[in-house]
Amino acid sequence: MNLPQNVTVKEVGPRDGLQNEQEMISTEDKVEWINQLSETGLSYIEISSFVHPKWIPQLGDALEVAKAIKRKEDITYAALVPNRKGLERALEANVDEVSIFMSASESHNKKNINKSIEETFPVLQEVVEEAKQEHKSVRGYISTVFGCPYEGPVSIDHTLKVCNELFEMGIDELSIGDTIGVANPVQVEEVLTSLDKYFDKDQLALHFHNTHGTALANVLTAMQLGYHTFDSALGGLGGCPYAKGASGNLATDDLLYMLQGMNVNTGIDHERILEAGKYIQQKMNKSLPSHHMQILNKGGAFL
Amino acid sequence: MNLPQNVTVKEVGPRDGLQNEQEMISTEDKVEWINQLSETGLSYIEISSFVHPKWIPQLGDALEVAKAIKRKEDITYAALVPNRKGLERALEANVDEVSIFMSASESHNKKNINKSIEETFPVLQEVVEEAKQEHKSVRGYISTVFGCPYEGPVSIDHTLKVCNELFEMGIDELSIGDTIGVANPVQVEEVLTSLDKYFDKDQLALHFHNTHGTALANVLTAMQLGYHTFDSALGGLGGCPYAKGASGNLATDDLLYMLQGMNVNTGIDHERILEAGKYIQQKMNKSLPSHHMQILNKGGAFL
Repeated sequence: MNLPQNVTVKEVGPRDGLQNEQEMISTEDKVEWINQLSETGLSYIEISSFVHPKWIPQLGDALEVAKAIKRKEDITYAALVPNRKGLERALEANVDEVSIFMSASESHNKKNINKSIEETFPVLQEVVEEAKQEHKSVRGYISTVFGCPYEGPVSIDHTLKVCNELFEMGIDELSIGDTIGVANPVQVEEVLTSLDKYFDKDQLALHFHNTHGTALANVLTAMQLGYHTFDSALGGLGGCPYAKGASGNLATDDLLYMLQGMNVNTGIDHERILEAGKYIQQKMNKSLPSHHMQILNKGGAFL
Repeated sequence: MNLPQNVTVKEVGPRDGLQNEQEMISTEDKVEWINQLSETGLSYIEISSFVHPKWIPQLGDALEVAKAIKRKEDITYAALVPNRKGLERALEANVDEVSIFMSASESHNKKNINKSIEETFPVLQEVVEEAKQEHKSVRGYISTVFGCPYEGPVSIDHTLKVCNELFEMGIDELSIGDTIGVANPVQVEEVLTSLDKYFDKDQLALHFHNTHGTALANVLTAMQLGYHTFDSALGGLGGCPYAKGASGNLATDDLLYMLQGMNVNTGIDHERILEAGKYIQQKMNKSLPSHHMQILNKGGAFL
């Protein structure tokens, strides 16, 4: 099986994992959690979002979190920014990288950002320009590439157009999102084969959700096609706002299990990751849905 | 992606799914559940086990279940038999096929069957001979191929030896089991590439458990190698006796979702499968762990 030797796992739990959580988690607990994550060997942690707290109250303390965490030299600490105002707060927080986001489908973009796709481009253009002036790298997220909760299937042409515009703006990396976790391996192959004609594999990441259980099969397919950067959230945090209670993000711990078994290097310590998982679920006072946290929680032995 | 056009899904929920359940389910409920499964388009249902009720009290009503279900012509109704005595009860029950079982690893075989691997062969030989005389087809199960709860990794040579002996006895199909759900796609490829040198793909089935979340990725790999028969249990019933509370068998409903999305035919109606899942979880008074049953249970919309 042709697989990359090394894979970069980008931990999005503190942002994408927590953003749908209703129960407020204290700033202190978030900071301690991120500090623990910093000791696992992860090279990338998305720590929060500078979206207006009215939209995501849980992440209203982004600035405090960014200022309080202990940073390690070799880790990129990133945060989501929706617009120039968010960027200014992110710059004040001195994050290493900012992430901008939009959707491949018109209706999801409208519901999520309150703008059409065309109206979104200039807003993000401004963010990218200013971030670059401040010597920050910029990551893009494109949502609903594999399916939209309002429109169903999404045309690859829509995706290509948005990807192209984002790279034209000067982003450094683009994360291809299966926002509602509907993708299957054949579809992943179709989408990535199309993207491959225009974009560099090294500039693309895959962001899978495990709503329907297919996330690891999708990762495998992407790896077989030479992709080597994956977003995940410890413990499978995150849920799916469109299927309440369903599984959330691809779980970092489950991803690591598969990669380790296949001798793919990540540089991440599985034991420390599980310890950090135990920490945050204790603070959240609920059990996390990933397979490995479930095994741990139920006292099962690791085999 | 090179995938088989058609896949046979063998439903093992009424046997492998229920055998670890402590709370007794009534014979009537089992019969009604199997009758519902018979209406989904499944071509194969393993309905129970003729292991002595002392070992699996839950399946002590195998004979009653077999006699009470409404059988459909085009469905193979199978049951597990451990030895000649079990076979005689299975013949009385007039099942279409009997399944024999043993392990690839010595310690698991000893704990499970109370015999060494060498001592097991003649017992099963007798079962196969008598079943054949009675014109029944015979399925073999080989457990712990991808890892043993007592020994860890299992050598492929052990597996090959047991597979070979079972086919020499005259079994019609052999199901290759990841009993504790530890397999990863690279390992699946290694094992299947070895088996492929000696055995016909059409005579092998794959039996994955989803303990660590890798079952669908493993199915994908097996399909890419041309394998097209998979065991699964509706709702992911089954648990893992070695990691209490962990995920059980690969879930039929989750498997169908992935196959359907990839345009692989199974002949099975996904809606009816979910209805049958709702039925048995209501009777068991607990929610089933598969992704699709979880989405249903939490009132999420299917996307």
